[in-house]
Amino acid sequence: MHPKLLTFSLLFFFLARASAQTAVDSALIRRLADTILTDGKAYGNLKVLTKTVGARLSGSAGFYKAETWGQAALKDAQAEKVWMQECMVPHWVRGGKDSASFTGLADGKTVVKGDTGATFTKVMFMDRLDILALGNSVGTGPAGVRAPVVLIHDFDELERRKNEIKGKIVFYNYKFNPLFIETFKAYSDAVRYRALGPSRAAKYGAVAVLVRTMGESVDNNPHTGALMYNDSLPKIPAAAVGLRDADWLAAMLEDSDMVKVYLRTNAQMLPDTVAHNIIGELKGSEFPDQYITVGGHLDSWDPAEGAQDDGAGCVQSIEVLRALKAIGYKPKHTIRVVLFANEENGGRGGKKYAEAAKEAKETHLLALESDAGGFTPRAFSLALSDAQLANIKPWLQLLQPYGVYEFQKGGGGSDVSPLGPQLGAVVGELLPDSQRYFDLHHSRADVLENVNKRELELGAVNMAALIYLVDNYGFGK
Amino acid sequence: MHPKLLTFSLLFFFLARASAQTAVDSALIRRLADTILTDGKAYGNLKVLTKTVGARLSGSAGFYKAETWGQAALKDAQAEKVWMQECMVPHWVRGGKDSASFTGLADGKTVVKGDTGATFTKVMFMDRLDILALGNSVGTGPAGVRAPVVLIHDFDELERRKNEIKGKIVFYNYKFNPLFIETFKAYSDAVRYRALGPSRAAKYGAVAVLVRTMGESVDNNPHTGALMYNDSLPKIPAAAVGLRDADWLAAMLEDSDMVKVYLRTNAQMLPDTVAHNIIGELKGSEFPDQYITVGGHLDSWDPAEGAQDDGAGCVQSIEVLRALKAIGYKPKHTIRVVLFANEENGGRGGKKYAEAAKEAKETHLLALESDAGGFTPRAFSLALSDAQLANIKPWLQLLQPYGVYEFQKGGGGSDVSPLGPQLGAVVGELLPDSQRYFDLHHSRADVLENVNKRELELGAVNMAALIYLVDNYGFGK
Repeated sequence: MHPKLLTFSLLFFFLARASAQTAVDSALIRRLADTILTDGKAYGNLKVLTKTVGARLSGSAGFYKAETWGQAALKDAQAEKVWMQECMVPHWVRGGKDSASFTGLADGKTVVKGDTGATFTKVMFMDRLDILALGNSVGTGPAGVRAPVVLIHDFDELERRKNEIKGKIVFYNYKFNPLFIETFKAYSDAVRYRALGPSRAAKYGAVAVLVRTMGESVDNNPHTGALMYNDSLPKIPAAAVGLRDADWLAAMLEDSDMVKVYLRTNAQMLPDTVAHNIIGELKGSEFPDQYITVGGHLDSWDPAEGAQDDGAGCVQSIEVLRALKAIGYKPKHTIRVVLFANEENGGRGGKKYAEAAKEAKETHLLALESDAGGFTPRAFSLALSDAQLANIKPWLQLLQPYGVYEFQKGGGGSDVSPLGPQLGAVVGELLPDSQRYFDLHHSRADVLENVNKRELELGAVNMAALIYLVDNYGFGK
Repeated sequence: MHPKLLTFSLLFFFLARASAQTAVDSALIRRLADTILTDGKAYGNLKVLTKTVGARLSGSAGFYKAETWGQAALKDAQAEKVWMQECMVPHWVRGGKDSASFTGLADGKTVVKGDTGATFTKVMFMDRLDILALGNSVGTGPAGVRAPVVLIHDFDELERRKNEIKGKIVFYNYKFNPLFIETFKAYSDAVRYRALGPSRAAKYGAVAVLVRTMGESVDNNPHTGALMYNDSLPKIPAAAVGLRDADWLAAMLEDSDMVKVYLRTNAQMLPDTVAHNIIGELKGSEFPDQYITVGGHLDSWDPAEGAQDDGAGCVQSIEVLRALKAIGYKPKHTIRVVLFANEENGGRGGKKYAEAAKEAKETHLLALESDAGGFTPRAFSLALSDAQLANIKPWLQLLQPYGVYEFQKGGGGSDVSPLGPQLGAVVGELLPDSQRYFDLHHSRADVLENVNKRELELGAVNMAALIYLVDNYGFGK
């Protein structure tokens, strides 16, 4: 045979083989989709988790009910082995209903309250503010705190006005930037005011902090979330204010320098306590000592049911295992589902899992998280080299029918991230559509009714498909 | 210069010029996005339309309020010319609350009612059914219809059992197929039972029809929608049944052949009446006699507010005009926003617009519709040749930052479709994420609260961007 003909024949052979393999992969992924979309347990599991367990902050009574739920759900999904991995977690309690109100004297200009049309001129005014104490914050004590308020738009302004802060309540009114198309970018941009703002204000003598809620919703729900105190500075109370009330308070503050806020929160941080990562496993047939982890975090903030954050990620991860098992797929590597014990106010679950994996000298191929809500999937973020991303790009034709059309070079969710530096695992996360997430996240609106069954299921389909592909082909060099 | 060098230089020149032009386009699209995401009127307009006008079926009082709203909104958006195009429309009225109940005798097996856990054995049973008469249907009259029910799963079964139909109520329980990832495909597959089922049952002597709601939601809301009577057959009453009640009725029918339904609907079709397409225009600077149309339909079903169907498409189309004008863009072709007078139960608005365009011998470049909900955009469907699709593929890099990553070869929305055959216009439609649409469509749940502000706005961003690109580059040959 002419050498060129041989080359062409070989090329044809490889292309034909690749194409046949693609057809096999496509059919297997279709079977995963079929079971998830027809016999799926993701939504039913989420209904039980949200409606019979509900809120489940680490250390709370709800969390221990959730541990029991997680083990049962994994067994029901036919995990071959289910166990609990002990993990010390922070134990913060809200301690009762938070409340806040403000009073002031308008200086003569007319101000309009939100879209009610009500106007106020040259009068004493007072109103309540819808707030939630920030996670990990100290309370005000039963007497509360009453102090004049300083409206601060950003940290630069805080520095410029540092001499005006002493004895005051600092109100950070930094807004979510609507120009970021991906809302997580707006969150990353704004969240430093919640996380770091309290200690930065305490440095200049503030007595408490109010933070505009992290979000851009049309409602007034305050969104809680963790702060991080600087231990070398006084710990002062801090709370998130609903968006409409933040607008209202800011309008008053623009109009008058005589605004005082009364704030009462009852939170306290108790000593660390014991909780568990809940783990379920399917043993690998060829490489049982090499792991693919998929997970979400079991803990959730207390105002609602943690339906999107992160009940969705938990039930999707369990569904991945159930679907692989249900279609009779025998994984080559060991597949582990991990429901992490603590993400919201400490990230201890993921750290513990990575430490234990390191101690046991485990080899981890991939650690995938779903912690951006159970919305329609659009992409995966993966910590891969450019060459590896090029290797797996052909997989997109297999995923696109189910919604994922892009691999982004990036990190994993916060629970799986420690596995990267600790063990060299590829970490990644599902990137669903992000537009609705920050309307719900950490607020009273994070309930089952704001989860769409099919969107949740399609996330699980793509996660299962990616894990199947990694199990069979890896990422290459 | 060596000829090869010249070729390279020219190539470099063209690439550099193309790249410079891409940067110009990208910056202009960013300005459109900025105004829509910060100063946008889409959500505010939708709030007024849904909350002060509400339901607006063609010929209803609500529709005429909506005509006034549409003209005001277009003027407010700085349309240079706003007018009404008269159009005769069907005038169907529901005439009062629909009701249905069923009775039967269970034969000894135990049946469970939905997820309530209640069980029934060997007993007379009766229950109400949540129904909505189908659009364009005749009513039962005040006495209602009471008859035994035949459970029919598909048209094949109807044909097989045609001798059992006479004097009965046919209940079509054909289910939305969850295996279609795009829900519009499940709708296309199932909707023939709503549209054609009543006359097909009437052919064999049925006295009324119940149809399982077109959807796959977790709630029990019935979804109305138009039927199409075959004028050569008796017109019999017909109604949609909520999904949980459809399951319940089907379970009873599987268990007993003694189930009777009592149905009472009050609908009637009145003579055609006058309505209007509402049109706003920006005059083209270079080709004023060549048109780019963008629109949605102003009419909506009566159970709710027509927020997603199709208030969203109306306010997005108005927003396209507002944004182009707001950034000072001078279109080369004339841009027309059309709020079509009748889509839901007749499609008369689009037909009228195409007829008038044909009479006036207008040249239409593109007619784009948004009638699949104001959800996060994912793609555009366009009636283009493969060569034209290849020409415009590079535009996707400009749209993808805002959510659209694909051009699909396909048709336009039903209002713009007549412009294709009538005038050779390229017709198209925005394809937003489809997972939630059929939870809301034609049901009580189609309210403003089920529209996300940013998702709505991102649809408008992509529509405005596409229109800008077509205005400047066309589709090529």
